[in-house]
Amino acid sequence: MTFADRLAGLVRARGSQIVLGLDPDPARLWPDAVAGAPAEGPPARRAAAAVRAHCAALIDAAGPACVAVKPQLACFERLGADGWAALAATVEHAREAGLLVLADGKRGDISVSAAAYAQALVGSTPTPFGDVPGLGADAFTANPLLGVDALAPLVDGARAAGAGVFVLVRTSNPGAADVFDLELASGGPLWERLAAIAVELGEGVPLADVGAVTGATFPEHLARMRELMPRTPFLLPGIGAQGGSVESLAPAFAPGRAGGLVSASRSIANAHRQHGGDPAGAARREAERLREAAWRLV
Amino acid sequence: MTFADRLAGLVRARGSQIVLGLDPDPARLWPDAVAGAPAEGPPARRAAAAVRAHCAALIDAAGPACVAVKPQLACFERLGADGWAALAATVEHAREAGLLVLADGKRGDISVSAAAYAQALVGSTPTPFGDVPGLGADAFTANPLLGVDALAPLVDGARAAGAGVFVLVRTSNPGAADVFDLELASGGPLWERLAAIAVELGEGVPLADVGAVTGATFPEHLARMRELMPRTPFLLPGIGAQGGSVESLAPAFAPGRAGGLVSASRSIANAHRQHGGDPAGAARREAERLREAAWRLV
Repeated sequence: MTFADRLAGLVRARGSQIVLGLDPDPARLWPDAVAGAPAEGPPARRAAAAVRAHCAALIDAAGPACVAVKPQLACFERLGADGWAALAATVEHAREAGLLVLADGKRGDISVSAAAYAQALVGSTPTPFGDVPGLGADAFTANPLLGVDALAPLVDGARAAGAGVFVLVRTSNPGAADVFDLELASGGPLWERLAAIAVELGEGVPLADVGAVTGATFPEHLARMRELMPRTPFLLPGIGAQGGSVESLAPAFAPGRAGGLVSASRSIANAHRQHGGDPAGAARREAERLREAAWRLV
Repeated sequence: MTFADRLAGLVRARGSQIVLGLDPDPARLWPDAVAGAPAEGPPARRAAAAVRAHCAALIDAAGPACVAVKPQLACFERLGADGWAALAATVEHAREAGLLVLADGKRGDISVSAAAYAQALVGSTPTPFGDVPGLGADAFTANPLLGVDALAPLVDGARAAGAGVFVLVRTSNPGAADVFDLELASGGPLWERLAAIAVELGEGVPLADVGAVTGATFPEHLARMRELMPRTPFLLPGIGAQGGSVESLAPAFAPGRAGGLVSASRSIANAHRQHGGDPAGAARREAERLREAAWRLV
């Protein structure tokens, strides 16, 4: 079963296209997670325990309104080996809750190294001591700057594991225009060329298993993106804290509900700071609000 | 003291511009490293111990002919938390041997996440339990696709730690042409625009503290790159296994010996497979051969 099939089935079954971003900042965790951390030990160990508890509580609260989680790898890596262990535990927790896991690391490297990233995220690594399983994610984000031969081992590794890849086509940050929007001599901006690469890599399946990261903060591009990538699942980050609104995303859902995944992180985890209430209840309500708003668009 | 100053001083002191790439493949480690791994335990733990021993032996053998090591983060991440612990131990070992550490992860993400990567690689992370130190690298590689506002937190984080950033300007893989070489409507290929971004970010210091990754497999571009980036340190991967030759790199060294760092991985670690002898002796000889060849160019 391909990632695209699993995604479409799960969007239907859970009635949600919302992706819960997990960007834990150790300085802004939910109070209960901090209070429950071990009273002693190295700071990295204690902080990683708190991060793990925070993510588990967030998944328990907001997960029922979502179809996937998207852990931001940087947020875990900054706690070193303890952070990576917390990441693995968070992935496990999300899978047990029936959610897909989209590992957000925006990896991209030349062939041998790209293959190693695929092993780390969705595959496994042969060693003289037996195979070492990777993170077990269902999909991951990838940076296409190094070209097709650098993306291919990521896509091959993902396919072999029944996983998906979301290629950065245009990101949600204000400075994305610096490079993605550069006009090519052959016509059209660079991101249109990246869209063509994503389509080419995902060819041959009804809903492509190579998706595209298409920032939700520039909805004016979405109709054109859908034209260029008719069967490509879009991962749409930038809702909420980054300023994007769900209602502007309608063109993304042209190929059906699983054609667009709407990702929100801080607006869910920090909903209590804006709307009051306990963190879990506020997160649950905000995730449910987003779920309804997106579901209504198709 | 900026990274560029430390780099220039160390290149002089060690008489070397060679960067020892550490891309450990658990299936191709030096036999002694495998034999010395714990006899029991989970595969990830045993493989990580072997990777750590392999890297330490490689640093001990080839390090004296080098100025820096360049661990490929993917190769460690595929062993999970144990792999990250082996990475941290390898960084520590290299620093004790007097070598700079260039963390090769080609990271790139939007603002908050980019700042987290800087914390992970060269900074530290505030937590309620105290600051958690990152990897303690001296520099790292960065992917510029997401634009200047995504690179800025990486550069700021690096500067605050006295560390450097090497921005991908043009990589060494055959497919690099797919995107880096795209001709822009405003004239010149995309990589020239990326070179301008690297220069802009590194302005204001004699030898810039923002470097450029410029693949050694396309030496025909090097003179033009030097013209566009007169004071930028180049990290030149692709020597040896990827087919680049040291002699073709002369234009990189125009601003002085520290202007070009020549990176080699598999051609050193696997020198015994090609030239015979024990792995350590063969690695030492190959690193010394590269050191002499590069030093002779200026």
